[in-house]
Amino acid sequence: MILTVTLNPALDVTYDVGKLTRHAGHRVRRVQKRAGGKGVNVARVLAALGQEVLATGLCGGPTGDLVREDLDEGGVPHSFQPVSGDTRRTVVVVDDDATVFNEPGMLVHPAEWSLFQARFSRLVQSASVVVLSGSLPPGLPVDAYAVLTRLAKDAKVIVDASGPALSAAVTASPDLLKPNAQEFAEAGLSPTGTLVVSQGAGGMVAMTDGRCLEARPPEVLKGNPTGAGDAAAAALAVALRDAAPWDEALRDAVALSAAAVLAPVAGSFDHAAYRRFRPRVSVKEVPCPW
Amino acid sequence: MILTVTLNPALDVTYDVGKLTRHAGHRVRRVQKRAGGKGVNVARVLAALGQEVLATGLCGGPTGDLVREDLDEGGVPHSFQPVSGDTRRTVVVVDDDATVFNEPGMLVHPAEWSLFQARFSRLVQSASVVVLSGSLPPGLPVDAYAVLTRLAKDAKVIVDASGPALSAAVTASPDLLKPNAQEFAEAGLSPTGTLVVSQGAGGMVAMTDGRCLEARPPEVLKGNPTGAGDAAAAALAVALRDAAPWDEALRDAVALSAAAVLAPVAGSFDHAAYRRFRPRVSVKEVPCPW
Repeated sequence: MILTVTLNPALDVTYDVGKLTRHAGHRVRRVQKRAGGKGVNVARVLAALGQEVLATGLCGGPTGDLVREDLDEGGVPHSFQPVSGDTRRTVVVVDDDATVFNEPGMLVHPAEWSLFQARFSRLVQSASVVVLSGSLPPGLPVDAYAVLTRLAKDAKVIVDASGPALSAAVTASPDLLKPNAQEFAEAGLSPTGTLVVSQGAGGMVAMTDGRCLEARPPEVLKGNPTGAGDAAAAALAVALRDAAPWDEALRDAVALSAAAVLAPVAGSFDHAAYRRFRPRVSVKEVPCPW
Repeated sequence: MILTVTLNPALDVTYDVGKLTRHAGHRVRRVQKRAGGKGVNVARVLAALGQEVLATGLCGGPTGDLVREDLDEGGVPHSFQPVSGDTRRTVVVVDDDATVFNEPGMLVHPAEWSLFQARFSRLVQSASVVVLSGSLPPGLPVDAYAVLTRLAKDAKVIVDASGPALSAAVTASPDLLKPNAQEFAEAGLSPTGTLVVSQGAGGMVAMTDGRCLEARPPEVLKGNPTGAGDAAAAALAVALRDAAPWDEALRDAVALSAAAVLAPVAGSFDHAAYRRFRPRVSVKEVPCPW
C-alpha cells in the first residue's frame, strides 16, 4: 500500500466568476468544493490508477468533515487524525485563469501531533512507500517530515515540500526528494541522495548516484498546472515501490504529469492522454545542472 | 421589538493579503469570520444602539452554525429557521481596498419556506417594525417580500432590496422602501408610498406624501461603505417605531450611516462619530428628483 500524508489538507473551493476585477464586487456563478492538498491529490491519482493507497494526515472541524465526505465520494480510502481546529479552505477564483487564496491552516496542538505520530507508525507498517507532501500547518515543528521519515522505518519515503520543511526533511535522508525547480533553489539544498526536480513545461530532471537524467514531455501543453507535480509524485511512488529503472520512472512521471495538466482539477488526469504520452516522453542522460 | 429578516445570510470571511494580483497565488495572512447579510447587519446595529431586536431568516448547515455562534458572541438575539442547505459564504479579499465574492446561497425547499412563514407569523406578533433586507436565496419565490409584508399585519414594514425582489415587494405596499439610488433606478419603480433612497456620500432623499427631503452628511468620509445602508435602515426602523418626524428620522439615518463608514466592518459604527455627526446633518426640502 502507498500511504500519502497531508498534514495541512484543504477544502478547495472554486468560484466561477465572469471576470475578476480588483476592488469590485462579484456574484459567484458556480461554487464547487473538493478535498485538496498535495497529498490528497497524490492519493486521488493513485486511486484512479487502481493502485492500493491510503490517505492520512490531520483533519478537523466542519470543513474537515467535508474533506472526508468528498474523499468517500471519490472512492479514496482515508484515515485522518481528527484535530480540534477547522481544516482550512483554499479559494480558487476562475475567470480565464486561476487566482488562488490559500488559508494558512488550523493550529495543531502538540498532543494532536503526538496522536498523529502514533497513527502514522501504525499505518506505515502496511505501507511500502510513504509520500509526504505539502505545507505544514501552524503549530507543527519544522522538522515534522524528518520525524515521520525516521518513523517510516522499512517503507520508502518521498518528500514533496518547500522551504524550511524541505530543508529540515533532508536531515533524515528520505529516499527521494521531489521539489519543483523553484522550491529546490529556494531551499538552498546541496544535491545529495536521489532527487527529482520538476521544471513545469520543461519536464523533470532526476539525479541519482551522481548521474542525471532529463525527461521531457512530448508536447507543450496548455491547461491547469495545479496538481501536475502531485501526479508526478504518484508515478514516482509506484516506481519506487516496484524498484523500476529510473528512465522508466521518469517517463511515467512526466507522462502522468502532462496528462494532469489536461484535466480540469488537481488530482485528476486525462487517461487517454496518459497512454498516448507515455511512449513519447524523451529521456536522456544530461550533465547534472547542480 | 424590531424584527430583522435575512433570508440569505452569509458567513463573511475576510482574507488579509499583501496585494491582490489577478491570476496569481496568495498566502492569506489572516482569516476573520463574521455573521453577515444585510438584515444581520441591521440587527447588529440595533443591538449596539441598545434597541430591542430579534434577527430571523433562514440558516443551515455547518456554515449556518458558525453564523449562529457569531451572533451569540455578538449578543444579537436570533431565531432562524433551520434549513437543509449550507448557508453561503462571502469572501472579502482585503489589500488596500476590498474585492468581494458573493456566493449565490443555498437552495431553499418549498416546505422550508412554508415553515419560515409560520415562524415569521408567530414572531411578528411581538414586533412593531419588520426590516426585510437583502437578496433572496435560490428556490424562494420572487414575491417573498410581498408575502411577508402581507403576513406582517399590524407591524410596520421596511424593505431594503433590489431588482425583481424589490419590484415584487412594492405590490404589497410596505410602509417604507429603502433602496440605494442604483437599486431604485434599476427596479424602474414609480415613486409611490414612502421612499428613502440612499445616495452614498451624497446622503439620502426621502419622499413622503409627495414632498421630498434631502439630508446630507456633515463631511465627506473615507472608510468602509459596506453596511452603511444597513445602519441607515436600523435608524429608520427606530424612527418608524417611534413615529418620529421625517426630518429627525433622516438626520439620524444619515449620521448613523456616516458613523458606519468609519467602522472597519459592516454592522458596526463609530459611536463617538455618530453623536458628533447627528446635530450637524443638514436637512432641507428639495424638489422631488423623481
